[in-house]
Formats: sequence, structure tokens, C-alpha cells
Amino acid sequence: MISEHVRATLINIVGLENYEDSPAERLVYSYDATPQFQSMPDAVISPRHTKDVSDILKICSEHRVPIVPRGSGTNLCAGTCPTQGGIVMLFKHMQQILEIDEENLTVTLQPGVITLEMIEAVEAKGLFYPPDPSSMKISTIGGNINENSGGLRGLKYGVTRDYVIGLEIVLPNGDIIRTGGKLAKDVAGYDLTRLFIGSEGTLGVITEATLKLIPMPETKKTILALYQDIEAAAKSVSTIIANKIIPTTLEFLDQPTLVVVEDFARIGLPTNVKAVLLIEQDGPLQVVERDIQKIAELCKSEHAVSVEVAQSDEHAEALRTARRSALSALARLKPTTILEDATVPRSEIAKMVQAISDIAEKYDVKICTFGHAGDGNLHPTCPTDVRDQEEIHRVEQAFAEIFEKSIELGGTITGEHGVGEMKAPYLELKLGKEGIAAMQAIKQSFDPYNIMNPGKIFAKNERKRVVVTS
Amino acid sequence: MISEHVRATLINIVGLENYEDSPAERLVYSYDATPQFQSMPDAVISPRHTKDVSDILKICSEHRVPIVPRGSGTNLCAGTCPTQGGIVMLFKHMQQILEIDEENLTVTLQPGVITLEMIEAVEAKGLFYPPDPSSMKISTIGGNINENSGGLRGLKYGVTRDYVIGLEIVLPNGDIIRTGGKLAKDVAGYDLTRLFIGSEGTLGVITEATLKLIPMPETKKTILALYQDIEAAAKSVSTIIANKIIPTTLEFLDQPTLVVVEDFARIGLPTNVKAVLLIEQDGPLQVVERDIQKIAELCKSEHAVSVEVAQSDEHAEALRTARRSALSALARLKPTTILEDATVPRSEIAKMVQAISDIAEKYDVKICTFGHAGDGNLHPTCPTDVRDQEEIHRVEQAFAEIFEKSIELGGTITGEHGVGEMKAPYLELKLGKEGIAAMQAIKQSFDPYNIMNPGKIFAKNERKRVVVTS
Repeated sequence: MISEHVRATLINIVGLENYEDSPAERLVYSYDATPQFQSMPDAVISPRHTKDVSDILKICSEHRVPIVPRGSGTNLCAGTCPTQGGIVMLFKHMQQILEIDEENLTVTLQPGVITLEMIEAVEAKGLFYPPDPSSMKISTIGGNINENSGGLRGLKYGVTRDYVIGLEIVLPNGDIIRTGGKLAKDVAGYDLTRLFIGSEGTLGVITEATLKLIPMPETKKTILALYQDIEAAAKSVSTIIANKIIPTTLEFLDQPTLVVVEDFARIGLPTNVKAVLLIEQDGPLQVVERDIQKIAELCKSEHAVSVEVAQSDEHAEALRTARRSALSALARLKPTTILEDATVPRSEIAKMVQAISDIAEKYDVKICTFGHAGDGNLHPTCPTDVRDQEEIHRVEQAFAEIFEKSIELGGTITGEHGVGEMKAPYLELKLGKEGIAAMQAIKQSFDPYNIMNPGKIFAKNERKRVVVTS
Repeated sequence: MISEHVRATLINIVGLENYEDSPAERLVYSYDATPQFQSMPDAVISPRHTKDVSDILKICSEHRVPIVPRGSGTNLCAGTCPTQGGIVMLFKHMQQILEIDEENLTVTLQPGVITLEMIEAVEAKGLFYPPDPSSMKISTIGGNINENSGGLRGLKYGVTRDYVIGLEIVLPNGDIIRTGGKLAKDVAGYDLTRLFIGSEGTLGVITEATLKLIPMPETKKTILALYQDIEAAAKSVSTIIANKIIPTTLEFLDQPTLVVVEDFARIGLPTNVKAVLLIEQDGPLQVVERDIQKIAELCKSEHAVSVEVAQSDEHAEALRTARRSALSALARLKPTTILEDATVPRSEIAKMVQAISDIAEKYDVKICTFGHAGDGNLHPTCPTDVRDQEEIHRVEQAFAEIFEKSIELGGTITGEHGVGEMKAPYLELKLGKEGIAAMQAIKQSFDPYNIMNPGKIFAKNERKRVVVTS
């Protein structure tokens, strides 16, 4: 509950038009893209600039009001669900690309900029921002930074973390700090830039970012390798890399995913094979052609039943788009879709795919698996129905076992989605008590009153969730 | 002072042969590569394994004994000088390369491994670890990680931070934690891996690391571009990159540095020009040849008086070796050599070089400038003599003004050397009071008794230095 005094103070900061607490508005921001999580915020606030954010955080600190910074809410870990109430902070007034610097190869922008909009703006200047989360058409850069988003080009180019070189941050006490800059190198003290990347809104609010850009690759080519044996597909992944070729993209889709994606996208994907690899290479033409030819040979040597090079940019784009639509396509199957991102060392992909299949059978649940195989980052996805409590229980048991298996194989509970509230119960599997204690010490030192996105990463629920169906 | 009880306990942990407190041994570890800093430790300890480190840290925490982890002491920020006494920790028993994993492209090793030894071991398998600090022949990986070391290949490939994907760390309370793994992606909580990279031994002790490797580039070529105008050389740097070519290496040396390096290396470097750029590109042959040709054209268009492609691997290696020897060569000029690493956005290199020259003139000190121009990371270097207090005072004023200028140009006080004790007084220029407070909060949360390398990054001297000449 927000007191009348706090409400008036916040309205005084941002103006009446930027503070909403009608039931309708609150309902809109009571959930994000994560199934099974919903909780009403007390209000929704839209700061106009950094100073507003600072003033808001001072008030929230003083009065212990939770603040949940939110981009487009596309995360899949309940990272922006206001599970302990409080105020959802939106960035609709902070959506400017401030500068594209062609000499230093940087873009400086506000957190509310849509990822794809920035990518298109820099590509118009022949520059390239590689991280391309599947949600990039609607996700914001602020959200990408807070979640350290991955994407389809991570194998060769890395993730969001590898491109953020400077931040303006408002700390919970209202202090405004700047980290890094247009600098290739900076070792002036601890790496606060990377500490905030992936911190899921639990340490402060990012109000500006400077991103590193690279020259646009000259060309790219796409191939689709088909397999009647999942293990052969998985083996191809490590064979390609062990042969010292790092493709831009190395995606895996199993048969159940293929069937659903083809039904959604209708681009002629094969549905009669057990698995496909979607592989892309970019760079100078000669190198791309040579690599693609070698990749095709390696896939054949690992028993691909067919290897097809996309014959046009349109065809390649259709394949990529189909892959990006996997979640949307799977979401059509059942009322609820639970998508995970257990991640293992690349060499363990075959074992992990097999384990997922065994676990699905054991708990009698349907799990479709696709993902960034080159990164060892799989997305086992379960179409289910939260109203069927008995099935949901089995689904949750299956995913718990999947997380355990990925840890056993030297992996992690999340490769790119974040912990949020959804995976908080599993964090100890990866970090141990000591690792969690170290992270909690950081949280405590930045946010002693636990106002920043409380309940995420560590804490257990204190407020009962409103369970809804999608 | 270490009490007899603590001494006996520590000897009990590591064995008498691994605990040294003779005056001779203490003297050896009373300084590092940084001029003007010396302070006697109370003892020197050599743990045999992680468990020893944990036991030592528990004792030191309990009894508030400072611990200074030290690799080869090649840092240039007084980062391993035991300025508040206590115990210097060596890693001579932790020098194993534990595994080179050719499927996941990783190397796992102990902190005491010499950088070059690891690089040669992975290159023997066709793999590549890009960070190549000039000290790599003697520096250790543990030291590289604690300082987030750069090198000559940073422009294209990044720095140590970009290659460390997993750590085993002993916290000051003795807890052993593991971060990351053989994983391309991991977002399970805060990025402790990167928090520890560059933390200068102030948060805990790194006892094992997993590093990412990449395929060895197929070939490389080297060119030397000569200029009679420093600004033209600096302008060439941004022109090359604005033309969307990212060379592996883009080094700058001014005339005073050239003269000294040639006198040292005797490889026929030109000494009658105002500046040179040493530029390398690596990758597939066609791409390298094309890039090198384009770079040569761009340098000429920016008024290089000569552009020469190294005609053999031996010649290229001689040029690189000469560049790496710059500090050693400059150190022959005067009893004391102060080498700094002010860093600016690449576009500001010309202004920064000019400013350094103006400042040197203003304070009547000799400053030779060289460095990683592509990274905006310059090494203004002053040959001086600490016994000449009047000159040293002018040198310190000059460097203070250089740091201020680099901040004014959007830069930082250190690009790759770290803060240590040497640059602690300047940290606020970059971070502001609020940024320092945020970092101190982290330090306090990990190390409440301030046992880990106290006096570094933040604090002021509490113990008087013993000033010595080199």
C-alpha cells in the first residue's frame, strides 16, 4: 500500500499524467511473459528523465516501497512481475537513441529504446550490434541489459554483456553514478558495468547505456542440416567447433518443435526428420563460402541425411524468422507454455537432449526442445495448462530434474533468461549456499531496504501469487 | 606484526617450508614493478592448494592480518606492494595447467601458471588465447585476472575479462565458491566472475580459472607506417576504424620512444620520424591481405611518409618484440621510470597526445608516449629519478594533469594497469564520490575486516612508505 503522502510526493515528481493507480492500469502491469506469475502493483510510474528516477528512488527508499523497473516485460523468469507489490517503473519517456558515434563505434541510448529499432538505426550506418534476443522486435535495451540477453548470434559474437561499455545508473539511495564510457578499456575500480548487466533490476535503475558496435559483416549464408538421429545432430555441433569453425549461429530444433513451427510459419520446413541444425556463418564472402562448405561436409560426415544451403536471402530470412517464432508457435498448442533455458558445456549437448527426452517420458509430459546448441543453451519447452494442477505438478518435477541434470553435466540453471522469481528456488544448485551468500551481501550493500525488485534472484515469496491462465 | 600464535597456526597449515619470515625473504617481496613503493611484509606464505588458502584466510580474518596475493609482481600500480604489512601470498605450488578441452575450447588452470607458458600450450593445439600483456613472459594468469590485463591484441580481441568464464575463489571468510564454468552463457545471479576480474586482490583469492579459447588465426601480417606529424598518425587510427577495419594490433610510438627502443633492440627502426604506427591484422589469408592493403592506403591518405609491410615472420616478430620491450628500453634512461596508462575514446587520441606533450613542456619533464592507440590506451612514460625530489614533484604534477585531461576527454585514469595504491588518489576523478561509495560498499560486504590487499583502490596510506631507487 502506498500512503497518500507518498502518492502525492511521487505525483509531484513526475506529474499526475505519469502516475497511474487505476485498477485497469495496475492489472496491465501485474504480469509479464512468464506463465504462472501474477501480482498487482500498487501503482505504475513513468519518469521523464534521470533526475525523476533519482527522486523516485529516494522516496521509495525512505518509505520502503518496492520498485520494479520494467521494459516490455518479455522476460521468461517472472523478472518483472511485481510479486511484492509496490511500483512498476516504465521508460516510455526515455526512448531516445542519443548518439551513434561512427568514429568510436558506439551507440548511446536510453533504456526504453526497442532493441530492433536500435539495431536498424546502426545497421543503416553499416554498423552491427550482434545480440539479437528472439524478443527483439518488442524488447527494450534496458530489459536486455538487466537480463544480459542472449540471442541467435551469441556463439560467435557473445551476449549483451559483451557490448555494454558504459552505464548511467541510479542507485537505490538516489545517487547517480556513471560507469565506463566510450572506452575500449577501463580498469578504474570494480567492474560495476558488468555487475549491473544481468542484475535483473535488483541493484538500481539503468538510465542510460553506451554500447559497443562492430563493423557490419559483409555477407552471410545459411544452411539447414537434417538428421534422423538426435545424437548425430548434437555431435555435429561439437564437431564443427572442434574443427575450429565458429559459426555465427548454430541452432537446434527437435522434431516436435519442427512440426509446430512449420504449422505456424508454413515455409516448407521438413517435419519428417528427428532434428535439424540451422547454421549461419557471416563475414567476408570467401571465408563464408569456405566455412559453409566445410560445415556441410562435417554435418554429412556426422550422418546428416540432408544438408541444404539457403539459395536466397529471403529463404535464409524465412528460416531465421521461423526459428525466432518457436515460442509463439509452441504457445498455440496449449493454454500455458513453460520455456526453460538449461545450459551445459557444448560437449554435453547430446547427453542433455537425451536426458530431457527421458525426463519428459518419466513424468509423462510433452517437452519440445530447441535452442542455441552452439552455446550449449537449450530451451526445453512444455506446452501445458496451469488449470490442470496434477499435470503442472509433474511439469515442475520434470523441470527440477532437468536443472539438476544440467548442473550434473557442468552446466547452469539459466543461460540467458535470468533467475527472476521463477528460478530462485534452483539457484543454490548452481551457486551453493556460499555463492548465494556472496551475492546477497552485494544486494544488501547496494539496497539495504530491499526496495529494488524484491523477491527476485534470492528471496522466497512473501505475497501469494494470483495464478492465471494465458 | 604476526603473533607467535598466528605464526604457529599458519605454519601448521602450510608446513614450515612454505612460511618465510626472514628479513631477506621479506625484502624480496617488499616491492613490485612500481617505482616509489616499498613496504616490508611480515611474512611470505605459499599455500599448496585451495584448502590451504581457505584455512589461511580464516586465520587472517580472525586475527585481522592483511593478505596480499601476488603473482610475479609485474603490475605497475603498486597493486602487490604490501603497503600495510601482513602476509604476501605466493602461488608457486599452484602452477598447473589442469586441462585443455578441445571440444569446449577452454583451458582450466591454477593461478600461478605463467601467461606465456599457457599461451604456448594452447597454441600447440591450434588454439588461441588473445590477451598478451607485455609482461606475459613472466606474469601469471592469476595476476592477469586480478588486474584485468590488456595487451597488444586488445583492439580486435578484447582483454583478460573477455576470456575468463569460470573461477574458483576463496572469500575472506574462507568460503570457497565457484562461478561460471565451461559455459558460453550463464546468468545465474550476479556476475561474480567479472566482479573478481580486475578486483586487484581486494575481494578474495582466485585459486582456479577456466579461460575461453578461440581457434588460432590462420595467418597474420604486420605493417609499419611512419609519420612526420603526430596528429596525422593519431588521425590514421580513427580513420582505419571508421573505415570498418578492426586490426588485431594498432600501436603508436612517438619519436623519443622510437629512439630509445631502437637503441635497445637494434632492429633498424626509423628514428628520424615523429611517430610510427605498428599495425597487425590476422585471419584468413585473403582477408588479411585485403585489409593490410586497405590499411596501407588509408595511412598514406592520412600523410604517412612511408608504409612498409614486414616481409617475413621474423621481421614482424622483431617489430612486435621491440614494441613489447618499450618499458625495458625506457627504463635504461634514468634510475626511475614512471609508466602510466591514461585512456581516452579512440577519437580523442590526437588531442591526448598533444596534451601530454604540452603538459611535459609545462612541467619541464621528459615524457615518451607509446601505447595501444586503437584502444585509446596510451602509455606516457617519464624517465626520472626518485632521489631528485624537486623533479619528482613536477613529474607528479604532470601526471595529475594528464589524468585530469583524460577524464575531460571522456577517458579514464587507467585502461589496463589498475588502480592499486598508486592511482587511488585519482579514482574520484573518474568515479565521483558516489561511484567510490558504491565500490566501497562491495568491498565492505566481501571483506568486512579489510584483510584483502588493504590500502589498494580506495584507501589512503596508513603506513609510511620506504622510498627506494630502482
